[in-house]
Amino acid sequence: MVPQWIIEKKRDGLALAADEIRFFIGGYATGKIPDYQMAALAMAVYFKGMTSDEIAALTDAMMRSGKVLDTSSICLPKIDKHSTGGIGDKVSLILAPLVACCGIAVPMISGRGLGITGGTLDKLESIPGYRTDLSIREWLHVLRKCGCSIIGQTAQIAPADKKLYALRDVTGTVPSIPLISASIMSKKLAEGLDSLVLDVTWGAGAFMKSCADARKLARTMVEIGRRAGKGMAAVITDMNQPLGHAVGNAVEIIETVETLKGHGPGDLVDVTLELGAQMLILGKRARNRKEALAILRRHLVSGAAFIKFKEMVCLHGGSVAALDNVRKLTQAKIREEYLAQRGGYVAGVDANLIGKACVVLGAGRRKVDDSIDHAVGITGLVKIGDSIDKGSPLLVLHANDRQKMKEAEVLLAHAFVISPAKKMAPRLIVGII
Amino acid sequence: MVPQWIIEKKRDGLALAADEIRFFIGGYATGKIPDYQMAALAMAVYFKGMTSDEIAALTDAMMRSGKVLDTSSICLPKIDKHSTGGIGDKVSLILAPLVACCGIAVPMISGRGLGITGGTLDKLESIPGYRTDLSIREWLHVLRKCGCSIIGQTAQIAPADKKLYALRDVTGTVPSIPLISASIMSKKLAEGLDSLVLDVTWGAGAFMKSCADARKLARTMVEIGRRAGKGMAAVITDMNQPLGHAVGNAVEIIETVETLKGHGPGDLVDVTLELGAQMLILGKRARNRKEALAILRRHLVSGAAFIKFKEMVCLHGGSVAALDNVRKLTQAKIREEYLAQRGGYVAGVDANLIGKACVVLGAGRRKVDDSIDHAVGITGLVKIGDSIDKGSPLLVLHANDRQKMKEAEVLLAHAFVISPAKKMAPRLIVGII
Repeated sequence: MVPQWIIEKKRDGLALAADEIRFFIGGYATGKIPDYQMAALAMAVYFKGMTSDEIAALTDAMMRSGKVLDTSSICLPKIDKHSTGGIGDKVSLILAPLVACCGIAVPMISGRGLGITGGTLDKLESIPGYRTDLSIREWLHVLRKCGCSIIGQTAQIAPADKKLYALRDVTGTVPSIPLISASIMSKKLAEGLDSLVLDVTWGAGAFMKSCADARKLARTMVEIGRRAGKGMAAVITDMNQPLGHAVGNAVEIIETVETLKGHGPGDLVDVTLELGAQMLILGKRARNRKEALAILRRHLVSGAAFIKFKEMVCLHGGSVAALDNVRKLTQAKIREEYLAQRGGYVAGVDANLIGKACVVLGAGRRKVDDSIDHAVGITGLVKIGDSIDKGSPLLVLHANDRQKMKEAEVLLAHAFVISPAKKMAPRLIVGII
Repeated sequence: MVPQWIIEKKRDGLALAADEIRFFIGGYATGKIPDYQMAALAMAVYFKGMTSDEIAALTDAMMRSGKVLDTSSICLPKIDKHSTGGIGDKVSLILAPLVACCGIAVPMISGRGLGITGGTLDKLESIPGYRTDLSIREWLHVLRKCGCSIIGQTAQIAPADKKLYALRDVTGTVPSIPLISASIMSKKLAEGLDSLVLDVTWGAGAFMKSCADARKLARTMVEIGRRAGKGMAAVITDMNQPLGHAVGNAVEIIETVETLKGHGPGDLVDVTLELGAQMLILGKRARNRKEALAILRRHLVSGAAFIKFKEMVCLHGGSVAALDNVRKLTQAKIREEYLAQRGGYVAGVDANLIGKACVVLGAGRRKVDDSIDHAVGITGLVKIGDSIDKGSPLLVLHANDRQKMKEAEVLLAHAFVISPAKKMAPRLIVGII
């Protein structure tokens, strides 16, 4: 097989055979096929798409470029959740212990934040001592002990995807549904799961700017997973405004703790419970959504989920004291309210601009190797539908640098729409697949 | 400027600004922009095309990546011819001395053969001693002395194009009119010409498989040249069947000599004279096509063009004796007629298959660094419209290896269409722009 003939075939709109995809991805992973041929193929895929068969073959080839984890020593159903990313999205931190309380193992391998999207690992690392770099053996040990464990991507999992992801980032080939789907699913299928629930976000703060694209992406990934013999469900959620009231790292841990104690913001709780319900149904821990929601609510209200979270943090070497008294978490030097210029109803909160403001403050990364400031971020963020007075706070800024705070404020000046008429909160959960 | 933003802009179908193209090509030439970003941009251009302004900027940026030759020491009008490639195309070898006889300087920088397309340099190198690697100083000296000189591409001319051309070859981005046009024109505009005449071929043996695409390519290149202040003309010619009766290297030199002596095949003479006429008109050596053709014919019949050719070969260190007695040129060990399986009229000669058969014999290259056999090839090739008897020769094979000859014959078995009804020879010159 000749790499350029495969590129030309895709360029001309033909479907590639499974062995052609295997040859190309295998060659790319081992360095026999250079970046420039992979970049040309990725751009051809951007324009010409891929059939379900091709996406399945691509996912499989990327998964097989690395290790497929053996989780057979865990007897519980093994179910993970994956989100396509959002602003203020701390769902994983609540969901993993909550679902683990219901007799499901949650073997979660998570990512770091890049661009406006926050990363679950970065948030966890604001808990003093928490290790995200457990070995696979340690990870399995924590899973067996408490039923959930959140760690970072290891180099052994889907190395072809890792290489391709970095390449797509610099070659204008990120927003391609076949490539996004295969990238996510190759990593998830390597985790040794029984089932997977997807949170596919759409809107200003999401990859997918339209709800229709989010549905398409969700359907594509659900099909890949089902073809691989996994139980699959996807929830399409609105990410035009951030989730919850806090965006950052330590500040999101505080909101996580509040939520695990039963005092979480409505939107965050709703998304978490909906995803959890799908996991319980797939894991046969509930017969239907209604029963599942009741079980989950019980574990949240009873404090069981919070105890489970502390157990997991403890097994990862993290400070449980900092969760019992969140003032022990790192705090920013400057804390300043950002005030409304006029009164009315909040009609829009641009998740993209809020995310960018947090990157400017230092809570996120522009480049993969940037370091982040765990203390900075935003709290007390208003939500669409809220009534506000002129001069009342729209949010509280947590900053360690006045100059960066000023820059963030420039972005925030365009982040809110205040209208005289009350606007209903948008539909948060727009579909379940 | 960020390279991936430029890629994304083109991917989304927007026109790039001249400074964006300059930044990208300049960065690519100096290695600051890697192959994989160039490959992604090339594929985006393949799908989204380029405006005239963009193509002009791309041509200019590639030209300026290297040296622009100073030919001001030559007082005659400096006019070159460029062909987009063909099978049996030895036009340059006849045209350069012929036009030089008419008071025009022909500063020709030529390429080697790749794939089925033969290379003028390879043909010239079958003349013992002929040096294609003159320095620019030597080249200018030959030009001043005899009015024409054919040499190979130097590393100083349009290095960005050289790099991009090699990249396109392995990334499925060759057949793109903006990229082809800019590649050809960047090299030609660097030669220090006053005018340029293009031979844009279409058909089985050409890059452009349709006449419409050839016209589009011709118009694009003519526009680039005119924008750069050059006199331009393009002739669209049929390359469905090979040009002349000989395909190879030494065998094409023999046909060249025959033609320069006034005994050339009709199609080869016609194309040569048509291109020459355009050069004479652009160089103001004739008032119109009719007058130009008369002047050219006179120099062919008188033997002046042949003398000029020998003068050029001599100044390049080549053996004039081998031109006066072509038996001194390298000859293949095996010479065998390839016979018609049935009688009738020749209705088709597939230039692509004839070209491939010659590559198999060893007359051409599959890869850039392949070596070639100057002796092998094909002579006595029949033309469309010829009447043939069963068992009469369709061509004569010149080979140095029985095995390769057998392989060539397998290809040749599909190269001819013999029909009971006489078919007219196709229109050779289908348009002049």
